[in-house]
Amino acid sequence: MPTFPPASAGVAAVSVDAHFERVLAGVAPIGRVDAVRLADAAGRTLATAVDARVDVPAFDNSAMDGYAVRRADVASASPDAPVVLDVVADLPAGSAEDRLIEPGRAARIMTGAPIPPGADAVVAVERTDGGSDRVAILAAARPAHHVRRRGEDVRAGERVLEPGVLLDAARVAAAAAAGLAELAVAAPPRVAVVATGSELVEPGAPLGRGRIHDSNSLLLAALVADAGGVVSEALRVPDDPGLLLEWIEAREPCDLVVFAGGVSVGAHDVVRHVLGGLGGVGFSRVAMQPGAPQAFGALPGGTPVFGLPGNPVSVAVSFEAFVRPALRRMLGHADVRRATWRATVDDGWRSPPGRRQYMPVALAVRDGRPVVRRATRGGAGSHLVAGLASADGFAIVPEEVEDVAAGDAVEVAITR
Amino acid sequence: MPTFPPASAGVAAVSVDAHFERVLAGVAPIGRVDAVRLADAAGRTLATAVDARVDVPAFDNSAMDGYAVRRADVASASPDAPVVLDVVADLPAGSAEDRLIEPGRAARIMTGAPIPPGADAVVAVERTDGGSDRVAILAAARPAHHVRRRGEDVRAGERVLEPGVLLDAARVAAAAAAGLAELAVAAPPRVAVVATGSELVEPGAPLGRGRIHDSNSLLLAALVADAGGVVSEALRVPDDPGLLLEWIEAREPCDLVVFAGGVSVGAHDVVRHVLGGLGGVGFSRVAMQPGAPQAFGALPGGTPVFGLPGNPVSVAVSFEAFVRPALRRMLGHADVRRATWRATVDDGWRSPPGRRQYMPVALAVRDGRPVVRRATRGGAGSHLVAGLASADGFAIVPEEVEDVAAGDAVEVAITR
Repeated sequence: MPTFPPASAGVAAVSVDAHFERVLAGVAPIGRVDAVRLADAAGRTLATAVDARVDVPAFDNSAMDGYAVRRADVASASPDAPVVLDVVADLPAGSAEDRLIEPGRAARIMTGAPIPPGADAVVAVERTDGGSDRVAILAAARPAHHVRRRGEDVRAGERVLEPGVLLDAARVAAAAAAGLAELAVAAPPRVAVVATGSELVEPGAPLGRGRIHDSNSLLLAALVADAGGVVSEALRVPDDPGLLLEWIEAREPCDLVVFAGGVSVGAHDVVRHVLGGLGGVGFSRVAMQPGAPQAFGALPGGTPVFGLPGNPVSVAVSFEAFVRPALRRMLGHADVRRATWRATVDDGWRSPPGRRQYMPVALAVRDGRPVVRRATRGGAGSHLVAGLASADGFAIVPEEVEDVAAGDAVEVAITR
Repeated sequence: MPTFPPASAGVAAVSVDAHFERVLAGVAPIGRVDAVRLADAAGRTLATAVDARVDVPAFDNSAMDGYAVRRADVASASPDAPVVLDVVADLPAGSAEDRLIEPGRAARIMTGAPIPPGADAVVAVERTDGGSDRVAILAAARPAHHVRRRGEDVRAGERVLEPGVLLDAARVAAAAAAGLAELAVAAPPRVAVVATGSELVEPGAPLGRGRIHDSNSLLLAALVADAGGVVSEALRVPDDPGLLLEWIEAREPCDLVVFAGGVSVGAHDVVRHVLGGLGGVGFSRVAMQPGAPQAFGALPGGTPVFGLPGNPVSVAVSFEAFVRPALRRMLGHADVRRATWRATVDDGWRSPPGRRQYMPVALAVRDGRPVVRRATRGGAGSHLVAGLASADGFAIVPEEVEDVAAGDAVEVAITR
C-alpha cells in the first residue's frame, strides 16, 4: 500500500499574506474582451473606461411642469398682482419645437422638455392659474429657476465609469444616459472545479458505507459564478492518479483549475501526488484555520491551478481568501479583496496562536451596528457544511489573538 | 391641447410607511414552484423547508490521517515507550471495509474514512512512526479523539434551510450534504418594465432636439433581475394614451407591471391618464424625496402595477423603497426589507422637512466603520443618473430631520 509521505516533504510553512501574494503573482488579467449590449451588461466587469458621448442632459430643460418665461416679464408677479402672458407654445417632453419666446409671452412646458430660446426660467404650474391660451403668473422667478442645465450631470468626454467595476443596474443606466449602446466587458474566466475523493457520490444518491454526498463541486461552482467566472466543468474524480492525470490532459479549455481535497499528507492524497509529480505546483502549510494545506501553481501549459483542502468550510474559506481574489484579478477588477467591516462579537471563542482564523459567523444588526456570533455548532470545525449555510461571512481573527471575547471588535468579511 | 389636471385631483398625501403597507397588501406570493437540480439552484429562492435526509456525517469517521485504535491499547503510549500494534486494514476515504479491530490491532485510516468497529479513537500520523504492517504509537488518545461523530453536523430530519431564503453557494452545498438532489424554488415573478415618454430614444441613437436616451428601462430590467424577477418585456412607450392602452391589453403574461414616468401632474402624463381611467390604481404624493408621485394598484384582471416617477434617481429610490419589497414578497422571502446600517456622515446636506429623504451615497470604510458622502454632485437631485452610478446605497433621513451634518449617524441601505 502507498506509504505516508513525510509530513513536511516539499511543504513550505507560509503566512496567509505571503500565500496571497504568491497567488496574485501567479494569475493575470485574462484580457479577452466581449462587446455586449447594455441589456446584457449587468453582472459583467467593465473592461474599458466609459466616457460620456453626449452632455447629460443634452439640452437645458425644465425640472417642473409649468411655464417657460422671460424672468424680466415676471419680476413683479405676485398672487395679488399676477402678470398675464400669452401662451404661444405647448412643449411636452420630447418636443422638438424651438420657437423664440418674445417679451410678454410664455410657453407651457412639461418636465424634461427643452427650454425654448428667449426663456430663462420656469414657473411651476402651482404658481400660476394653469391657463392654456393666456396664463396668470403669480410669482417671480429666480435666475434659471427650475432649469436643468445642459451638461450639469456630466459633460461629453467626462469619465462616467472606470474600468474594472462590476456593472450593476445604476452603472448600466449611467452608460445609457451617457450615450452608449454597448460596452466592452471582460470575458469571464473559465474555471474547472474538481472535487476529489473516492468517498464522493452524487447528490441524492444512496450512501453505501463510507460514502458521502459531494457538496464541494456544487459549492465551488456557485462560488465561481458568484465571483464572475463561468464553470467549464464541475466534476468528481476518485482518488486514482491515472484518472486524475487523464482528466488534466483531456479537460475542456479553461483559464483556471480548482481542486478540492487530496492536498494534505494522506497516503491517498491524489492531488498532491499528481500535481507534485507534474512540477509547477507549490504545496504550503498556510498559517490559517481552517484551510492550512494549500497548493497553488500552474499545470503544464501554464493554466493556474489551486489545490484546496477538501472539507467544505475549508473550501469556502480558501475560496474567499485566495480563489476569489485571483478571479477578480483575472477579470481586471480594481479591488481584488473584499472590504471588511468591524463588528462586535456576541459570543466568544478561541483562536489558534500563530494562525489567522476565518470563523464562519452569522451577522445581526443591533442598533444599526453589526454583531456577529459563530455560525456553526462546532466553531471553525471545517467539516460543518450544514452550519456553514447559516454563515453570513467570516470573522478574520489575527494571528496573534488567542481569545475572542464577547464585546470584542472583530473584522468581518460579509459574503452574503 | 390637454389641460393641467388639478394638482390634487384624486391624489392622496401619504407617508412612506403607509404607502409601503399599501403596496405589501397589494401583492402576494405568486406560489408557482419550480423543481431545480442543485446545480441550477444558486440565486433562486427556496420555496419549501429543507430537512436533512441523512445524518451528516453519515457515519463516525476520522478527522485526521492516522491510525484507528482501541484507546485501552494505547493508554500507556509515549515517545519513550511506544505501543506497537499490528496494522490489519488500510482505510482510505471511501472505504467500505468494516473489519473489526481486535485488541492489539489498528487500522491505518485517512481523513473521512469510517471508523472501523472496535476502534474508538484515532491517533494522528504525526504521533506514530507511520508504519505500514506494524505501527509504533507514541501517544495516548482521548475518548473519541479525532473522531467526527455521526450526525454531529446535523441529524436526519433536522431543519437545514428555512423556506424563503436566497440559495447561495453555502446553502446549495448544505442541501447536497443533507442528501438532497433537487430543491423546490419559487418561480421568479415575471415583470414588464415600461419607460414612458415621447422624449425617449434607444441607447446610442442620435439625439434630436428634446430627445434623451432611455436609461430607465435598462435600470428597471437590471433591478428586477437583481431582485430575483425575470423581465417579461422591457420597452419604451411614447406619451400616447392609445398606444399605452394597446400595450396593456396585448402584453405578454406577467405577474407585475412597472411603469416609469408619466405619473405626475403634467398635462401629458400618460400613465396617470390611462391608469386613472382604468380604475384600480391609486395615485399618491408620498412624503419622500425624491420619488413623491407614486401610483400603485392593479390592472384590469388583477395584475399589480406600479407607476413610478420618471427621473432615474427617483426610479432607483422607488424601486428600493417599494418595488423590491413587493418582488421579495412575491418570491416568498421571509424579510422583504433590506437591513440598514448606521454610518457616519462625511459631508452634510439639507433634507426637506416632513419628507423622508433617500440620498444616494458613496460608502467608504474608515477604521472598519462605514462612512458615507453624497454620491451625486447635486445631492438628491433626481435626474443625476451619471452620479447615481457612484452610489453604493441610500442614506435614509427621517422626516423630522432637516440638517444632516458631518459626523452625524445616518441609516444606510447598502445596495451595491
